[in-house]
Amino acid sequence: MKQPTLKLKDELDSHALATASLESLYRIFTVPEAPNSTLGAIDKEISDNLMGFLGDRIVARERSLTAIEEDFSNPQIPEVPQFVSDYTDFVLDKLVAHSVHTSAPGFIGHMATPIPYFMLPLSRIMVALNQNLVKIETSKAFTPLERQVLGMLHGLVYERDDVFYRENLHNSRRALGIFCSGGTTANLSALWVARNQMFRATSDFGGIAIEGLARSLKYKGYDDVAIVVSERGHYSLSKAADVLGLGRNNVISVKTDQNHKVDADAMRAKCVELQANNIGIIAIVGIGGATETGQVDPLDKLAAIAAEFNTHFHVDAAWGGPTLLSNTHKHVMASIELADSVTIDAHKQLYVPMGAGMVVFKDPTAIAAVEHHAEYILRAGSKDLGQYSIEGSRPGMAMLVHAAFHIIGRKGYEILIDQNIDKAKAFARMIDAQDDFELITDPELNILNYRYVPAEVQAKLEASSHQQQKVINEILDRANKRMQKQQRAGGKTFVSRTRFSQYKYGGEAVSVFRVVMGNPMTTLETLGAILEEQLDLATRKGTAEIIEEIAALSN
Amino acid sequence: MKQPTLKLKDELDSHALATASLESLYRIFTVPEAPNSTLGAIDKEISDNLMGFLGDRIVARERSLTAIEEDFSNPQIPEVPQFVSDYTDFVLDKLVAHSVHTSAPGFIGHMATPIPYFMLPLSRIMVALNQNLVKIETSKAFTPLERQVLGMLHGLVYERDDVFYRENLHNSRRALGIFCSGGTTANLSALWVARNQMFRATSDFGGIAIEGLARSLKYKGYDDVAIVVSERGHYSLSKAADVLGLGRNNVISVKTDQNHKVDADAMRAKCVELQANNIGIIAIVGIGGATETGQVDPLDKLAAIAAEFNTHFHVDAAWGGPTLLSNTHKHVMASIELADSVTIDAHKQLYVPMGAGMVVFKDPTAIAAVEHHAEYILRAGSKDLGQYSIEGSRPGMAMLVHAAFHIIGRKGYEILIDQNIDKAKAFARMIDAQDDFELITDPELNILNYRYVPAEVQAKLEASSHQQQKVINEILDRANKRMQKQQRAGGKTFVSRTRFSQYKYGGEAVSVFRVVMGNPMTTLETLGAILEEQLDLATRKGTAEIIEEIAALSN
Repeated sequence: MKQPTLKLKDELDSHALATASLESLYRIFTVPEAPNSTLGAIDKEISDNLMGFLGDRIVARERSLTAIEEDFSNPQIPEVPQFVSDYTDFVLDKLVAHSVHTSAPGFIGHMATPIPYFMLPLSRIMVALNQNLVKIETSKAFTPLERQVLGMLHGLVYERDDVFYRENLHNSRRALGIFCSGGTTANLSALWVARNQMFRATSDFGGIAIEGLARSLKYKGYDDVAIVVSERGHYSLSKAADVLGLGRNNVISVKTDQNHKVDADAMRAKCVELQANNIGIIAIVGIGGATETGQVDPLDKLAAIAAEFNTHFHVDAAWGGPTLLSNTHKHVMASIELADSVTIDAHKQLYVPMGAGMVVFKDPTAIAAVEHHAEYILRAGSKDLGQYSIEGSRPGMAMLVHAAFHIIGRKGYEILIDQNIDKAKAFARMIDAQDDFELITDPELNILNYRYVPAEVQAKLEASSHQQQKVINEILDRANKRMQKQQRAGGKTFVSRTRFSQYKYGGEAVSVFRVVMGNPMTTLETLGAILEEQLDLATRKGTAEIIEEIAALSN
Repeated sequence: MKQPTLKLKDELDSHALATASLESLYRIFTVPEAPNSTLGAIDKEISDNLMGFLGDRIVARERSLTAIEEDFSNPQIPEVPQFVSDYTDFVLDKLVAHSVHTSAPGFIGHMATPIPYFMLPLSRIMVALNQNLVKIETSKAFTPLERQVLGMLHGLVYERDDVFYRENLHNSRRALGIFCSGGTTANLSALWVARNQMFRATSDFGGIAIEGLARSLKYKGYDDVAIVVSERGHYSLSKAADVLGLGRNNVISVKTDQNHKVDADAMRAKCVELQANNIGIIAIVGIGGATETGQVDPLDKLAAIAAEFNTHFHVDAAWGGPTLLSNTHKHVMASIELADSVTIDAHKQLYVPMGAGMVVFKDPTAIAAVEHHAEYILRAGSKDLGQYSIEGSRPGMAMLVHAAFHIIGRKGYEILIDQNIDKAKAFARMIDAQDDFELITDPELNILNYRYVPAEVQAKLEASSHQQQKVINEILDRANKRMQKQQRAGGKTFVSRTRFSQYKYGGEAVSVFRVVMGNPMTTLETLGAILEEQLDLATRKGTAEIIEEIAALSN
């Protein structure tokens, strides 16, 4: 065979490039931002003093959304490139200034946790490497790293022995979990696996993944399928039911007891009813730290029901899962190891930046139910993580979880989590000690609810009929909503609000404040100031008048 | 009403904190990484010389995956915190060193594009702010920014007038698109909308979102539903069909013509057949830059078929979409504005870091088909982006797209894209000019395929029967696979490989090299070196013997 030669020279000569403008464009890839440039200075400012940057650069007072929208209203992609320094000025004035200081100690309304300093340079390494975890060819060591992180989380939940992890951790035919962009995708993935396992392939049926839901129901002879969960279940479960083709009506909502935990007897009764109606149960979902109240369902009882009805048991521990890292409090999550799958978010109580959720599976072969391949990647037998994930291309966020596990360690997390729970309980006692607040949920973990109810109104409520209570609560709802909006607009502190049924008031829903304790910098003084501000708002024009309405009601 | 007072002091005193260990933990949130620390130094190294960092820190030679896995095999979350410097050493030695240099000029095998310098400090701002785009309360200005970015992309595709964008851009009842973690989620979102629009609520039917697929089919009287797409469709479409409950079998694959574009007549025939079989067509999908070959389907013809069958027309332009930014080449994407929805990835040809995909919808009310609410967020009438997204909590990646649109500008992108296409065409001519390579796809955009076929074998192939061709191609497959693996292991350059049906060989699939031209730093010299290396590999022991097999075949 002759030795081949290349005919390159001619090609090069004939290939005329528009070098002038191209060169200036090359610079954005090849010339670093100067340290004394606007962007370089901001970079240093954040690295040197993150809380200072956030505190100084985000303006505290609320600007109307309409005014902010003005700055983001041009629908044209700019024709001509802008100087980086000019763009940076825009970002600081128009974007950063009107962002939300989610890591302010007084921002206790949502599941937004502050990030440790080491996350900043590590995120830069992640962005710089720009790996794509869909496949080994674009991620290499990041793939084993992600599998290890999922294994660590699996170990936290299921505590299997070394032999188990040696056999499964890096086994191309097994997967201990799926790394996702967040808890919603993790819940969706878990229910996808549960649905597909229920309708798996047999000798005369290709399985739901291949044949679809309609044929699957026919094959199994079901009239429909359902997911059973507490009325406190996260909205992502209904969304998953929509996406998976099950329908939101088929998320069967079960009432909660006086402790805001699902009523296991009622749940079992629903399952009996579904079975009698020839409706297949895809999964029973337990909550490991409800989004609104923080309560943990009786997981042991739910596991028993799932076993009785031979269905998948999923636990949504997106928020509460890391409680397992605390020897002091992990008993609250007892029996979680009975779950077939568990969702835990890393961008919540693992203190990782936004964009990291995970679901782990008890059975490392369960995931085969959603396995898929493609010719150019994800070849069967490969270790490509994209074979199991609902997402395709995705970043190496697992690195930041790996870092947090090592740098904070189990003991470090224990301290953080214990503090969060202690503070929530202390705040509950502070609220209880106040005459003009009603504690709605006594925190089991670190989320709680309360509302403003002046002492006189509390007395009146207790003495009222159910119908009268309803009227009073409607007026209180208006007052509490108003206060929450004013406090948010004030920009100093933030609690969120929600609305859910109250066992105490015969199942009627009321509007309540919602507090999530996740910021180590939040102190009892911060919490005291939040209550002070609320009491001050309560006496202001508007709210005071609303409350007067209750006094004016005839008994 | 009495003035309320706080009982804080007692609470504070009784709340004994384990201050000693807690204080050391506070430090990770309050004390920045010192500039002269290991992590601080790495941070500076990346900021000063990104390509240098990647070139120096990633080892070029392939280490076996098994060996790498050893470093990530402990399934225990470490009990005790590790020093940041020690952890950083581990990251450099074990993770970074064995990552993939995806922005190396010779890494032209996948859709991995390098990122401009300005992305590094801007990513830090994004991570530091840690906004959550699910709702205004945790994102504020980021929400209008994301809506603007989606509007800009919508404008790029649909070119509607100012009145349209003024009416829709920040309208809480409308959405011009959905921001996603990537193209897979974007395609899934588009098909979710298409499916739900097909089975929308009526006076006597709640809609598929509420009632599920089984009842929807009954209501409409269909036996099943399908999605119709070219055999070159991305694997995410089959995955979406699985997730959405349609089943992979219901992704109807249509053959391609000699130009690797879908055969529109064959597609229409499939639709006729589906209709005759009482199968509802959820969507027709056109490809705007096929993942494997880069070809663009005849979008005008597909739009006409979709109109004829009154179905949703989706275009997957995850890779090719940004071609619209080039006045030179946008004609290749002609008629894309006829699509009901279009997927475009930002982490591909928009040069944004991993984790940014988008789908835009022609009709800004289409998205109502997947709208959802929750009491504590996403209240109806709010502008919370989480009302429409498949994901829940997610980061402010839209900021990086916004930055790229402004700092690179349309003209900048035009240069980048024109260069990519020019280089792909030049590379195709280089391959053509070689006696021992066969060009498989003449690039329409900037992706192409070729394979090693020695001149003698090419002659033999042409003179062979279909059956003989098949035998020869199977031997060639082995040779090409071997070369591709050896080249990857060599670590200097990387082309990927795939396998798809060849019109030229009677529809038989052959294994081919796949090249994606997205790196501005890739030069014609780089491409020449890649071919040189392949020709060298071809003469080495192993491949040469494989090729000898063909010579030994009887005619």
